[in-house]
Amino acid sequence: MSEAALADLATPALLLDRARLEKNTRAMAARATGAGVRLRPHLKTAKSAEVARLATAGHFGGITVSTLAEAEYFWGHGISDITYAVCIVPDKLERAAALVRRGARLTLLTDSAEVAGRLDARAAELGVRFSVLIEIDSGEHRTGVGWDGPAVIAIARALDSARALDLQGVLTHAGHSYACTSVAEIKRVAEDERLAVVSAASHLRDAGFVCATVSAGSTPTAVHAESFAGLTEIRPGVYMFFDLAQLGRGSCELGDIALTVLATVISHHPPSSRAGRSRLVIDAGGLALSKDTSAGDHLPGAGYGWIVDPCTAERIGDLRVALVDQEHGYVDGTAIPRGRLPVGAKVRVVPNHACMTAAQYPRYAVVDGDRVIARWERANGW
Amino acid sequence: MSEAALADLATPALLLDRARLEKNTRAMAARATGAGVRLRPHLKTAKSAEVARLATAGHFGGITVSTLAEAEYFWGHGISDITYAVCIVPDKLERAAALVRRGARLTLLTDSAEVAGRLDARAAELGVRFSVLIEIDSGEHRTGVGWDGPAVIAIARALDSARALDLQGVLTHAGHSYACTSVAEIKRVAEDERLAVVSAASHLRDAGFVCATVSAGSTPTAVHAESFAGLTEIRPGVYMFFDLAQLGRGSCELGDIALTVLATVISHHPPSSRAGRSRLVIDAGGLALSKDTSAGDHLPGAGYGWIVDPCTAERIGDLRVALVDQEHGYVDGTAIPRGRLPVGAKVRVVPNHACMTAAQYPRYAVVDGDRVIARWERANGW
Repeated sequence: MSEAALADLATPALLLDRARLEKNTRAMAARATGAGVRLRPHLKTAKSAEVARLATAGHFGGITVSTLAEAEYFWGHGISDITYAVCIVPDKLERAAALVRRGARLTLLTDSAEVAGRLDARAAELGVRFSVLIEIDSGEHRTGVGWDGPAVIAIARALDSARALDLQGVLTHAGHSYACTSVAEIKRVAEDERLAVVSAASHLRDAGFVCATVSAGSTPTAVHAESFAGLTEIRPGVYMFFDLAQLGRGSCELGDIALTVLATVISHHPPSSRAGRSRLVIDAGGLALSKDTSAGDHLPGAGYGWIVDPCTAERIGDLRVALVDQEHGYVDGTAIPRGRLPVGAKVRVVPNHACMTAAQYPRYAVVDGDRVIARWERANGW
Repeated sequence: MSEAALADLATPALLLDRARLEKNTRAMAARATGAGVRLRPHLKTAKSAEVARLATAGHFGGITVSTLAEAEYFWGHGISDITYAVCIVPDKLERAAALVRRGARLTLLTDSAEVAGRLDARAAELGVRFSVLIEIDSGEHRTGVGWDGPAVIAIARALDSARALDLQGVLTHAGHSYACTSVAEIKRVAEDERLAVVSAASHLRDAGFVCATVSAGSTPTAVHAESFAGLTEIRPGVYMFFDLAQLGRGSCELGDIALTVLATVISHHPPSSRAGRSRLVIDAGGLALSKDTSAGDHLPGAGYGWIVDPCTAERIGDLRVALVDQEHGYVDGTAIPRGRLPVGAKVRVVPNHACMTAAQYPRYAVVDGDRVIARWERANGW
């Protein structure tokens, strides 16, 4: 499309700052290259082929996804090496098989020998071979098995003896890095994550299994880890955009955050018992921003996002979205500059959690300053 | 489409129980008819033309919307009388004007005389006349003006003297009914809501203004109000589906809730420090359910939703989604029936807040028992 001005966009709109996105993707690619580890970026946040091209530049081109809809979308956009990093069930193999038949190098995940047996039976029925990773629990306690217990060997044995599955290696995700309260603690979690999955690989190799892939990575641990030794790849995702959740964990600065929501002031409200202070209401509420407030655990006052100037992206005082209804956001702060922000004025909201906010939109308005230079589609849903 | 079995759906999927939907829409239509008030259902939750047809049956056919995208969608599906119940700004009038030019009876909302003046100038530029309601704050303290202050008269005067705007009446929304802790308290809020908007209408009429529309309504107040006297219409919305937030406020029973998310068990996890108990993980996480936990204010243990049987829709023990990541939901409860819920088993999740959950999906799978009888599209976005 032709260029447009930010002011011409219907609000709320999802903005992606191209320069910041490129800086973030280049920085992580360089970090991985410098550490001698492959970067398999997680596209669960971006869900965009254009972002994937930037994020994989300089690396081998493989990506990570969180849904089969993403896998299908990225395959349709020329990306063939895809790890679906959520434990799969037999019912989902038919869709996965369709991608493999078309030539995708799709890698799946399991954390159960019993399920591996059922996956094998279904894959054999479908007449397709799948590469499978064993998920290791490095402390998140979500899915996965311990690196040193009997389960990991049992799963390896099930995969090794399968007719239609191949043991590809091990994968872990230190999602518990999000609960860390300091960078020093993230560094410790990153080392635990690395040791868990590298030890799992050694354990398997000692038992005579091949373990080609040793995969780890969340954005906090990828940013702060002091060693990637023994890993073959890392899979951070939200670093492409960053957000207040990452800012609060020391993974980025405000000036690195590439994703914002453009909103319009729709009402000035007098002081009230609910708000306590004079307040602005904007047209970005719980749907436009999501109801995620997890950044507040580490960044008190994050609210549902911070208000920044639509052009300079500089923060306006300490304004934040303090409350949301479905289509209303209540802006609060120490001093509300009503004169600067009349009804009809545009603001940008730096989101609390980029993954949740971005998912509310079918596409990005890609911006260079206050110009909209492109529209990029997203692969939402399942 | 031809019929399908629930078990054939890719998960997560958004299910809408047709029988419950019809029961809920018929009950509210009858309640409004019995009270002699028009029902202008709010489609912000459902965003579906098929649901709108059921919700308007037996009434005059008008609806309420929360976005211009909804207004455009419903106009495209044959609904012409539409109130856009969020304060509008001049920049949005061009889209609104396009609907009016095509014949829509679109009613807008304002809470400012100053903004009304700017709306009039823009409407005159566009060469279109708009009907406008004055928003009254009946205690929610979001947008709107007091019923008895100078502001309501100032806005009426601005609309009355406008070249391209017509004063249509007054509207309020008792969103603060959601904070009530008892049905008795909701009844008091409903009466406050009614009195505020009816008094505003009297105030305007006493000052010589015409006030044809006197509009009120949230689902809690529409369900529990003891009088609608003086109102011309009510605008409840989520009653079509209900959810745990409404259950916790005494507005419905579990058996009334028409919206659920179909999910698949993807992992069994051993006891851990994070969960405290054995736990199931399902493929419905923060995106599939939303991160809204507001039902928990009135229903401790609501979590991100309750687990029910996929066929009978009966609750399974006290199982609930206790934690979510983007694509993972952690199920917890006093006793986890692992044998009944192996990896691969389907469950349904009764959502915490239907408006937020439904918005994550492009369409409904409409179900009759365990059969999928239709797919209905949703008008998401802005």
